[in-house]
Amino acid sequence: MDSRFTGVVPAIITPLTPEGKLNEDAFRQVMEFNIEAGVQGFWVAGGTGESVLLDDAENMRIAEIAADQAAGRAYNIMHVGVASTHRAARLAEHAAKAGCEAICCVPPYFYTQSDKAVAEHYRVVAEAADLPFFAYNVPGFTHREIDIPLMRRIQDEVPQLTGLKHSGANTSLVKDFADMGLSCYIGNSTLMLPALTLGASGCVDGPPNVAPECWVAIWNAWQAGDLSAARAAQEAATKVTMLVRSCGSRFHAVCKAILSRRLGVACGDPRPPGEPLTDDEVAAIHGAMSSLGLD
Amino acid sequence: MDSRFTGVVPAIITPLTPEGKLNEDAFRQVMEFNIEAGVQGFWVAGGTGESVLLDDAENMRIAEIAADQAAGRAYNIMHVGVASTHRAARLAEHAAKAGCEAICCVPPYFYTQSDKAVAEHYRVVAEAADLPFFAYNVPGFTHREIDIPLMRRIQDEVPQLTGLKHSGANTSLVKDFADMGLSCYIGNSTLMLPALTLGASGCVDGPPNVAPECWVAIWNAWQAGDLSAARAAQEAATKVTMLVRSCGSRFHAVCKAILSRRLGVACGDPRPPGEPLTDDEVAAIHGAMSSLGLD
Amino acid sequence: MDSRFTGVVPAIITPLTPEGKLNEDAFRQVMEFNIEAGVQGFWVAGGTGESVLLDDAENMRIAEIAADQAAGRAYNIMHVGVASTHRAARLAEHAAKAGCEAICCVPPYFYTQSDKAVAEHYRVVAEAADLPFFAYNVPGFTHREIDIPLMRRIQDEVPQLTGLKHSGANTSLVKDFADMGLSCYIGNSTLMLPALTLGASGCVDGPPNVAPECWVAIWNAWQAGDLSAARAAQEAATKVTMLVRSCGSRFHAVCKAILSRRLGVACGDPRPPGEPLTDDEVAAIHGAMSSLGLD
Amino acid sequence: MDSRFTGVVPAIITPLTPEGKLNEDAFRQVMEFNIEAGVQGFWVAGGTGESVLLDDAENMRIAEIAADQAAGRAYNIMHVGVASTHRAARLAEHAAKAGCEAICCVPPYFYTQSDKAVAEHYRVVAEAADLPFFAYNVPGFTHREIDIPLMRRIQDEVPQLTGLKHSGANTSLVKDFADMGLSCYIGNSTLMLPALTLGASGCVDGPPNVAPECWVAIWNAWQAGDLSAARAAQEAATKVTMLVRSCGSRFHAVCKAILSRRLGVACGDPRPPGEPLTDDEVAAIHGAMSSLGLD
Repeated sequence: MDSRFTGVVPAIITPLTPEGKLNEDAFRQVMEFNIEAGVQGFWVAGGTGESVLLDDAENMRIAEIAADQAAGRAYNIMHVGVASTHRAARLAEHAAKAGCEAICCVPPYFYTQSDKAVAEHYRVVAEAADLPFFAYNVPGFTHREIDIPLMRRIQDEVPQLTGLKHSGANTSLVKDFADMGLSCYIGNSTLMLPALTLGASGCVDGPPNVAPECWVAIWNAWQAGDLSAARAAQEAATKVTMLVRSCGSRFHAVCKAILSRRLGVACGDPRPPGEPLTDDEVAAIHGAMSSLGLD
Repeated sequence: MDSRFTGVVPAIITPLTPEGKLNEDAFRQVMEFNIEAGVQGFWVAGGTGESVLLDDAENMRIAEIAADQAAGRAYNIMHVGVASTHRAARLAEHAAKAGCEAICCVPPYFYTQSDKAVAEHYRVVAEAADLPFFAYNVPGFTHREIDIPLMRRIQDEVPQLTGLKHSGANTSLVKDFADMGLSCYIGNSTLMLPALTLGASGCVDGPPNVAPECWVAIWNAWQAGDLSAARAAQEAATKVTMLVRSCGSRFHAVCKAILSRRLGVACGDPRPPGEPLTDDEVAAIHGAMSSLGLD
Repeated sequence: MDSRFTGVVPAIITPLTPEGKLNEDAFRQVMEFNIEAGVQGFWVAGGTGESVLLDDAENMRIAEIAADQAAGRAYNIMHVGVASTHRAARLAEHAAKAGCEAICCVPPYFYTQSDKAVAEHYRVVAEAADLPFFAYNVPGFTHREIDIPLMRRIQDEVPQLTGLKHSGANTSLVKDFADMGLSCYIGNSTLMLPALTLGASGCVDGPPNVAPECWVAIWNAWQAGDLSAARAAQEAATKVTMLVRSCGSRFHAVCKAILSRRLGVACGDPRPPGEPLTDDEVAAIHGAMSSLGLD
Repeated sequence: MDSRFTGVVPAIITPLTPEGKLNEDAFRQVMEFNIEAGVQGFWVAGGTGESVLLDDAENMRIAEIAADQAAGRAYNIMHVGVASTHRAARLAEHAAKAGCEAICCVPPYFYTQSDKAVAEHYRVVAEAADLPFFAYNVPGFTHREIDIPLMRRIQDEVPQLTGLKHSGANTSLVKDFADMGLSCYIGNSTLMLPALTLGASGCVDGPPNVAPECWVAIWNAWQAGDLSAARAAQEAATKVTMLVRSCGSRFHAVCKAILSRRLGVACGDPRPPGEPLTDDEVAAIHGAMSSLGLD
């Protein structure tokens, strides 16, 4: 495990203006809110950040803003995963120039690719940035599991490989990835504490970006060896995750609604085909926030 | 069923230059080869055409070339399916301006969307072109099945809906879609004749673009009511499909290898992460082509 | 293809008394009704026959009744698939003694088994009967697909292998199985005609046992080379299948309700955990039967 | 959580004689070995115990032996899950008479059943024993997930419901089940410690029955609040699980090979279609046992 890449790493939303453009100011405020809460890093423009719905120019601009805003106070793992290898490599190159600390990349999606092709895709993309490289195992979106044999192949062929976000269903793989020397972030925020007992390096997920204090509490208790406090913190954190998941596939919209209220800055709707919430749903979320003390 | 949209509709490859750019000349030659063989239309820049690996500018240029080359001798159903609604709508609008006869669109992929969101995506995209609109049911790529309830919703909300390519596993849905008044192309070229008995309007698939004569023979025999000839033609055609599928997920590369040899014009490799064939594999395909009389 | 094993082969229900015991008299009447309608054979105590819910003694008694009642007027393919190899072999041996013409067997279920173990299971069971042996590819129940490589292995190791019922999702495999010399019954009664164009030997499914005349009409038209009549017959038959499927997983109950009314003999409820229909559902089925002319 | 049902609960094998009959003496020795190692209970004749391959008479005899051998030193949760409700209820009734402390039951398999039918199956079976009742969520075998809505329904309709073995993929459900007041045993022995942090009551799985000392060490460290010792114990235990899983679906054979060697008593081969190990595989397992100190 690379000791630089540990802790709470929120997958940050991409706030949009009412016209559907990148809202730079809101993005900076969300980062600042998270940094002040004590997060160690950011997973930028990933699944929670509306990834594949962004244009390349937007992805590049986000990398620049993230590097500028964090300014070394938290590390940025910039997501550069797009469908074609060439475009992903161009984004990777830019992320390095922009000053991000690392990059991450989903495996190819839409077309099924062989293990060989996935490793080659990663090799080219990682080389273009020459930064610490994180695989992104998120079969719920990509329908491609990065299993142990594939990860071994990637490790053989991609010298920049440093770790991964593991959002696959099989929790026990955390230990296998850790045993390979990888920084394995658990990609399910309800499982941060269980994953830490297996050797996870931290947690990357969307819910922490709306209530970073909850997961920072787990991390701090874990670091202090206080199991009882860690369990209590995980239990509180899980309630936030359940709220974020309460509208199913519209979790982008829920994250934006929560952050809009907490920060007092409009974070906008998801980009279509992402679906916005109804007014009633927003009201229900505000009510749930009060119950959870998320004000 | 819309009587304009029937017959053999090859899903055409996107030939590339050695540098990986769109090869306009080769594209025109592949179209011409298919038109001369008697196909009724083309499915352009779809799954076989490396769809999501194309830049928007390339997609637009392909629409222009296709319309110019066919010049009314065959109809073009232009694929405009990309991840974001706005980009897809822009491509749709352009396809209409370029002179394509119809558009088609995969449902949103990567993020799972509700039926409501899929229908809304289609409504916006179809409206932007205001051409006959075809849904593209290809769960093998999109991991989103367009089932009967979803198709009913689309039919309610998208006035341009004319039909679909059905590449789902459940063959018997062809009849259900046909009963809804849709032009249902079967998306599996080994099942053209069986699907015609269920009311399919024709066949859209990649293999026909490398040997259109085989599927035109099925169509002509079917139109003539000659079941015995249709069965013999389907049997011959299926052998071509098996060859195209012989390298698994690298069917783009196989299609390009076959067409390069048949037309005497280099169609290039797939765009990465798509994997090329080895020299040995190309030689094996050439051998198989000889056995099948594909010269 | 073994020319003895073709045609319409209803998967017959297992009628039960109000006390939940095998109803021998009703079973004989259902067979007679089907024989009079012109079916070629029966698939006995299979998926539609509540297979795994039967005790071994019941399975054996059913084999005896079926052989006695058909008396050579239709062939019986007796299902002997149970979880353990030894029990299945004992049932197979009995089926032969009882006078059944052939046996069929699902692959092992519950525990996942290797291809080697599946072939060995089949070898032992087939040898115990030494009758023509049919594999039963029904992944919807067994969650084990008999794909082409596995079928090749079975063909190598089981000399009695004669054919299969193919209820897998991939319709085009019918042709591959037929090319292997197997009698391939299509296991989806909405696809009898399409499958015949691919070389199927006939149809095995539950819906034909409630309205055998519909599928016999497809078979007769097909044999006469009358495609137009075959299409009309398939269209009518499919409406019956849709009715049988109208209560989802409770298709056993629907089959029993239809046959109870058509034959005027109570066929009983499914065996628990199989769920009975409500009175309202039975009334709705009676109404639908009238619309379809099933009186 | 019912405080009686906690701790390490090995899923015990069913030893067989060379003739394939139940080996009562070996069964008693395996129990004794586990009791001496400090386990709290047994999961008897479940997935590891070759469940569905047993005859009802064997299942009943096993219940009697287990109760007699444990004699209150460890509790027995007797598995009574078979395909038909009536047979399962008869086994449940017998388990109570035999003196088992609780019963468990897989949901119906082979035929898909509605939530209503699953709950009704469980209601009838649980009532027949009137003992604490455990659901058995093992979709890898049954292909039926017991999700939260289904478990709520079961809880409403089955007064004996006390807990479950959770072998589903979604680890975070442990917390949801615990929040419902259920004793939730984690069904994956590599995840005992992580699951305890989520509120699991203990672990039920096959690997602990071959090396109970490893999981007892996790439990004791957890009870003592010694996180560091618990992590070390889980790490050692996981190595045993990996060995048990090293021959894929033949884990029954591996468990029997390990116990045969550790106890010096032949536990036999799996019942067909379960596949035995080759001599080379047995030798490899003996070698691995030495490396792990399992002598």
